[in-house]
Amino acid sequence: MNLGALIGLISGLGILGGAAAIGAGDAGVGLGKLWDAVSLLIVVGGAIAATCIAFPLPDVIAALSGFPKVFGTQGFTLADVVQDYVGLAEQAKKGELEKALEETPEHMAFRLGGIKDGIKLIIDGMSKDDIREILENKEEYRALREIKAANAIGKMGEYAPSFGMIGTLFGLVFMLAGMGVPPPPGVDPTAKLIASMAIALITTLYGALFAFFFFLPFSDHLKYINDEKKVESALQLAGTMMLYDKVHPIIVKERLNAFLQRKDRFVDDE
Amino acid sequence: MNLGALIGLISGLGILGGAAAIGAGDAGVGLGKLWDAVSLLIVVGGAIAATCIAFPLPDVIAALSGFPKVFGTQGFTLADVVQDYVGLAEQAKKGELEKALEETPEHMAFRLGGIKDGIKLIIDGMSKDDIREILENKEEYRALREIKAANAIGKMGEYAPSFGMIGTLFGLVFMLAGMGVPPPPGVDPTAKLIASMAIALITTLYGALFAFFFFLPFSDHLKYINDEKKVESALQLAGTMMLYDKVHPIIVKERLNAFLQRKDRFVDDE
Amino acid sequence: MNLGALIGLISGLGILGGAAAIGAGDAGVGLGKLWDAVSLLIVVGGAIAATCIAFPLPDVIAALSGFPKVFGTQGFTLADVVQDYVGLAEQAKKGELEKALEETPEHMAFRLGGIKDGIKLIIDGMSKDDIREILENKEEYRALREIKAANAIGKMGEYAPSFGMIGTLFGLVFMLAGMGVPPPPGVDPTAKLIASMAIALITTLYGALFAFFFFLPFSDHLKYINDEKKVESALQLAGTMMLYDKVHPIIVKERLNAFLQRKDRFVDDE
Amino acid sequence: MNLGALIGLISGLGILGGAAAIGAGDAGVGLGKLWDAVSLLIVVGGAIAATCIAFPLPDVIAALSGFPKVFGTQGFTLADVVQDYVGLAEQAKKGELEKALEETPEHMAFRLGGIKDGIKLIIDGMSKDDIREILENKEEYRALREIKAANAIGKMGEYAPSFGMIGTLFGLVFMLAGMGVPPPPGVDPTAKLIASMAIALITTLYGALFAFFFFLPFSDHLKYINDEKKVESALQLAGTMMLYDKVHPIIVKERLNAFLQRKDRFVDDE
Amino acid sequence: MNLGALIGLISGLGILGGAAAIGAGDAGVGLGKLWDAVSLLIVVGGAIAATCIAFPLPDVIAALSGFPKVFGTQGFTLADVVQDYVGLAEQAKKGELEKALEETPEHMAFRLGGIKDGIKLIIDGMSKDDIREILENKEEYRALREIKAANAIGKMGEYAPSFGMIGTLFGLVFMLAGMGVPPPPGVDPTAKLIASMAIALITTLYGALFAFFFFLPFSDHLKYINDEKKVESALQLAGTMMLYDKVHPIIVKERLNAFLQRKDRFVDDE
Repeated sequence: MNLGALIGLISGLGILGGAAAIGAGDAGVGLGKLWDAVSLLIVVGGAIAATCIAFPLPDVIAALSGFPKVFGTQGFTLADVVQDYVGLAEQAKKGELEKALEETPEHMAFRLGGIKDGIKLIIDGMSKDDIREILENKEEYRALREIKAANAIGKMGEYAPSFGMIGTLFGLVFMLAGMGVPPPPGVDPTAKLIASMAIALITTLYGALFAFFFFLPFSDHLKYINDEKKVESALQLAGTMMLYDKVHPIIVKERLNAFLQRKDRFVDDE
Repeated sequence: MNLGALIGLISGLGILGGAAAIGAGDAGVGLGKLWDAVSLLIVVGGAIAATCIAFPLPDVIAALSGFPKVFGTQGFTLADVVQDYVGLAEQAKKGELEKALEETPEHMAFRLGGIKDGIKLIIDGMSKDDIREILENKEEYRALREIKAANAIGKMGEYAPSFGMIGTLFGLVFMLAGMGVPPPPGVDPTAKLIASMAIALITTLYGALFAFFFFLPFSDHLKYINDEKKVESALQLAGTMMLYDKVHPIIVKERLNAFLQRKDRFVDDE
Repeated sequence: MNLGALIGLISGLGILGGAAAIGAGDAGVGLGKLWDAVSLLIVVGGAIAATCIAFPLPDVIAALSGFPKVFGTQGFTLADVVQDYVGLAEQAKKGELEKALEETPEHMAFRLGGIKDGIKLIIDGMSKDDIREILENKEEYRALREIKAANAIGKMGEYAPSFGMIGTLFGLVFMLAGMGVPPPPGVDPTAKLIASMAIALITTLYGALFAFFFFLPFSDHLKYINDEKKVESALQLAGTMMLYDKVHPIIVKERLNAFLQRKDRFVDDE
Repeated sequence: MNLGALIGLISGLGILGGAAAIGAGDAGVGLGKLWDAVSLLIVVGGAIAATCIAFPLPDVIAALSGFPKVFGTQGFTLADVVQDYVGLAEQAKKGELEKALEETPEHMAFRLGGIKDGIKLIIDGMSKDDIREILENKEEYRALREIKAANAIGKMGEYAPSFGMIGTLFGLVFMLAGMGVPPPPGVDPTAKLIASMAIALITTLYGALFAFFFFLPFSDHLKYINDEKKVESALQLAGTMMLYDKVHPIIVKERLNAFLQRKDRFVDDE
Repeated sequence: MNLGALIGLISGLGILGGAAAIGAGDAGVGLGKLWDAVSLLIVVGGAIAATCIAFPLPDVIAALSGFPKVFGTQGFTLADVVQDYVGLAEQAKKGELEKALEETPEHMAFRLGGIKDGIKLIIDGMSKDDIREILENKEEYRALREIKAANAIGKMGEYAPSFGMIGTLFGLVFMLAGMGVPPPPGVDPTAKLIASMAIALITTLYGALFAFFFFLPFSDHLKYINDEKKVESALQLAGTMMLYDKVHPIIVKERLNAFLQRKDRFVDDE
C-alpha cells in the first residue's frame, strides 16, 4: 500500500472540495455551479484523443489502466534483493546455484524474475561478457519501454490545459457572437453574459485540475518508479556478475550495499 | 492500420464538434460563427511559412505529406525480426547465408532491407569491425535524418499558437483603432465591437487547435516511430554480428529476445 | 550558519512585508486584506498533496523536513578534506593507515565517513579496481538519491502557481455565478463583486509567493549542495586511490588541490 | 537558391499583409494603423541591444549579416563529396595523392577546403592518430563556433517578445496615468484612451512578429545548416582515414554512402 | 574594452528612455510616472533575496560584483596562446623549458597562469598521464565553478518577472479591497482606481526590464565567456602534452591552430 499517494489524493480532494464549498457558500450559489459535463468532455476527451494520435493505442490503454499501480508497492525492498544475492553467493560457492532456480528465498515471497534470468544464463554456460551484454540490453530496453507510459500520461497533462483553453475560447467566441442576437423576452442579457462567462472559465479550471492534480503527478510517479528499477537492475547486474565469479558472500554484501543509502542497506543479523 | 490514431482523430473531432454545437445552441448562434477563413490562413499559412524559412522545402513537404503514415503500421513485429535472424542463423551454420539474399522469410511478406544489407556485407568478406562501423553509421545518420521531419512538424506546432496570437493582436489593434471612427449610420458601435472581438479570438482558438490537436501529436507520433526504429536497428546490428560469428540459433534467439518486452518476444512453437 | 540564506529570507520578508504595508496604507485598507486561509490551504495543501502522489511519502517528508538545512553549513571546507588526505598519505607511507580509522584529524572535528570507508576497503585488502567500483557506485547512487529531495521540492514550486490559478478560477466561477443571484437586501452587488475578485486574486498571489520565494529557491539550494558533494566525492575517490598507491604526500596535495579554486586550496603553512 | 526560404518569406508576408488589409477594411481604418516607429524601435532595437550585452559585437554582426545566407545553397551535395573521395582513393592507390592538391574534381566547381586539409596532413607524413585528432578538434570547435551565430539570433527571438511586452507596459502605464490628467478641450477622453490602447498593443504584436516570423526561424535555419555540416565533417574524417589506409575505392564508396539516405547516395554510373 | 556590451547598454537605455519620453509626452504626463521606488525594491530586492536562499552568499556577491567584467576583455587572443606554445616548443627542444617559468612571452604582457602550471608539472618530473589528469580535473572543476556565477545571475533573471507579478498582485488586491472603502471627501474614486492600476503595472514592467535588459543578457555573457575558456583550456592541455613530448614547433602550431577559426589562427610572419 503506497500510503503517500492515498493521503495525497484524499487530502487534495478534501482541500479542493472544502475550498469549493466555502467559496460557493460565500457567493450564495450551489457547488453544482462547478460541474459542466461538456467542459469535462473537452478537457479529458480532447487530451486523451490527442494522446491517441501521438502514441499507439496499447500504450495509451496500458498507461491509463496503470493508474491503480500508484497506490501499490513492490512487496520487497532493495535490501531484500541484496540479501537474496548474499544467500545465492553461498550456494554458488558450494556449486549449488542450479537448485536456486526452483527455490524461493526465505525472506521474500518470490524470487525475482530478473535474478532467475541471470542464474539461468550462468547455468547455461554462457561467457561472462555475453551475460553482461544480455542483461545490459534487457535493462536498457526495459527502461525505454516503461518510460513510454510515463510519457503518454505526461502528454495528457500537457494537452489538458490546452484543451481547457480551447474550450474557454469556444465559450468566449459564442458568448460574444450571442451578444449580437437579441435575447428572448424575459432574459436579462447581462445575466446571460455573466453565466456564459462562468461556464467558459470552467473548462480552463478543469484543464488545470486534471493536469496538475492528476496527469502530471501520476506521470511523475511512473518516472520515479522507473528510476527505482534502475537501481534494482544495477543490483541484479552486479550480483549476477559476482555469482559468475563465485565471489565471497561478504564481498557480495559489501559491494551491493554500496548502491544503497546507509539506512536502506541489508544488515546481517547473525 | 493504426486504429488508435484513427480513434483519436475521430473521437477528438466528435468531442470538439459536439461541444461546439452545444455551445452554439446555448448561445443561440450558428456553428458557422466559429469559421473564419482569414484566421485559418494566418495560423496554418503563417506557421508553415515560418517553418519553410527554418527548414529546407523538401523536408517540410516530406514532413507534411507523411501525415497519412500516422494511420499506417509496419506490417511486421519485432518478434518477426528475431524469428528471421534465428532462421538465418540456421542457414549461416550450414554456410548457406548467400541463398538468403534472394529468399523471403516464410513468416514475413518481405525481408527487411536492413537485414539484407548486413548479409551482403558479410558475403562481401568485410571485417567484423568494418561491418559494425558501417551499420552503426547507417543507424546514427538515419535517426538524425528522420527526426528532422518530426522536428519540422513540431516547429509548426510551436509557431501555430504564436501566429494565432499575432492574428488576435491584428484584430484587437484594428478594433480599437476602428472605435475612433464614427460608425456608419444604423450600426450599433457596441455590437460591432463585440463582433470584432469574437473574430479576433477565433485566431487564437485556431492556433491552439492546430497546435494541440494536429501538429504536436503528429510530431510526437513521428518521434515515437523513430524510437521504435532504434530497437529494430539494435536487433539488426546484434543479429548481423551473430550471423558473422555463426552463433548458434538458440543463443541468437536468447540474445535478441533480451531487447524485447516479455510479451513481445519470439517464442519458438516447435 | 549559512548567513546568506538567513539574510535572503529576512530581507525578502522585510521587503515584501514593507511593500505590502505601504500598498495597504495607500489604498486605505488593512494589511489583513492579504490574508486568506482558504487560499493558503489550496496553494500549499494542493501543491503538497499533488507531490505526495508523484513521490513516496518518506521522500516528501524528508524533503520538507530538510528545510532548516538551508541555514546550516557543513562545518568543514574542501581544503580540510585535502589536508586530511595529505596527513593520511604520511601515515600510509609509514604503513600506519589502519591507525587512522580510530583517529580524528587535528584540524577537523571528525573524520568524514566517506574517507573512513575508503581506508577500510584498503585495509580489507580489496583490489584497487574493486575499491574504485564500490566508491563510484556509492557516489552515483548517492547523487541520484539526494537529487530526489530537490526534485520533490521543485515539483511543489511547479505545482504551487498552478494551484494558485485553480483557486483563482474557483473564485471567478463562483463570483460570476453569484452575480445572477439577487444579493441580500442591504448588500451592494458591485462591492460584493469587487471583494470577491480581490479574494480570488489572493490565491494567485500565494501561488507565486510560495513558488518563487520558498519552494524554488529551496530546491535550487539543495541542487547546489548536491553539486558541492560531487566535488567532495571526487576528492575522496582520488584521495583513496592515492592512499592505495602510497603516493607521496606532496603529490597528493598537488593533485587534490587541482580540483579546487586557487583561493580554496589547502596551503601547507609549514 | 534556397527556394523554400524565399517561398516561406514571400508567402508569409503575403498572408500577413493580406490578412491585415482585410482586417483594416472590416474595421474601416487604414493599414497605417499597424505602423508605429517607436514600437519597432523598442522591439528590434531593444532585442539587439540586449543581445549585444550577451554576445561579443563581432558575433552579433556576423549573425545578423548572415541573414542573406538563408536564401543561398552550398552548390554541392553530399553525394559529390563521396564521389570526390572515391576518385581520390583511386589516386591514393596509384600514389598520386599529392597531385590532387592542385586539382579540382570534374564533378564539382572546387575541391572543399576540408578535403584538401586532410590530404595535406597525409602528405606531410603525420601519423594516423594525429590526423584523426586534428580533424576531430577542427570539427568540434567549428561546430561550437558556428552554433554561436544561431544562438545569438535565437536570443533576439527570445528577447523580442519581452521587449514587446515592455513597450506595451510603457504604453499602459502612461495611458492610465494620463487618464488622471484632464484632457485638452475638444478631446474625447474615451477616444484617447482607446487610441492609446491600440498603440500599446502594437509593440506586443511587433514582438511576436519579429520573434516568430524572423528571428526564430532564422536561428533554426542556422542550426539546421550546422547539423548538415556535421554529416559533411563525418564524411571528411572517414574519407581521410581511408585515403591514409589506401582503402579500395569500392569500399570507400560503400562506407561513405552508409552516412547518407538511400536517395542521396553517390551512384557510380559506369 | 568590450565595445559591444557598452554599445548595447547605452543604445538600449537610449531607446527605452526615448520611447518612454515620447510615450509620456503623448499621454501628457511626466516621465516620473514610470518611477516607483517600492516596485523597484520588490523586483530587485526580491529577486536577489530569493537568489541568496538558493546560492551561498559569496557566490551571489561574486556574481553581482562581476558585472563590470562585461565591459572588459582578456587582453590577449587565442592566437597569442598558440604563439606562446610555439615559442615554448622551441625552448623545450633545447631543454630550456625551465627558463620559461620566469620569462614573459614577447607578444603578450604576461604568461598565462595555466601555461605556467603545465610547465611546472613537466619540470617536476610528473608522468604524462598524471599531468593530463591534473589539467583535466582543473578544467572540469573550473568550468563547474565559473558557471555558478552565470547560474546565480540567471536565477535573478528568472525570479525578477515573478516578483514583478507578485508586486502587481499586491497592488491589485489592495486596489480592489480599497474600492470597498468610501474615498476621503474630494477624491474621485475612479481616478484613484486608475492611478493604483498604473502603479501596480509598474512592478510588472520593472520585472521584465531587469530580467530581459539586465540579468539574462549578463548571465548569457558569463556563459559565453565560460565557453571561450573551454577553448583556451583545450589549447593548454594539448600544448602542455606536446611540450612534454618535445614535439616540433611546426606541428605544435598546426595542431593548436586546428582548434581555431581560420581567421583567428596564429600565422608565423617570419
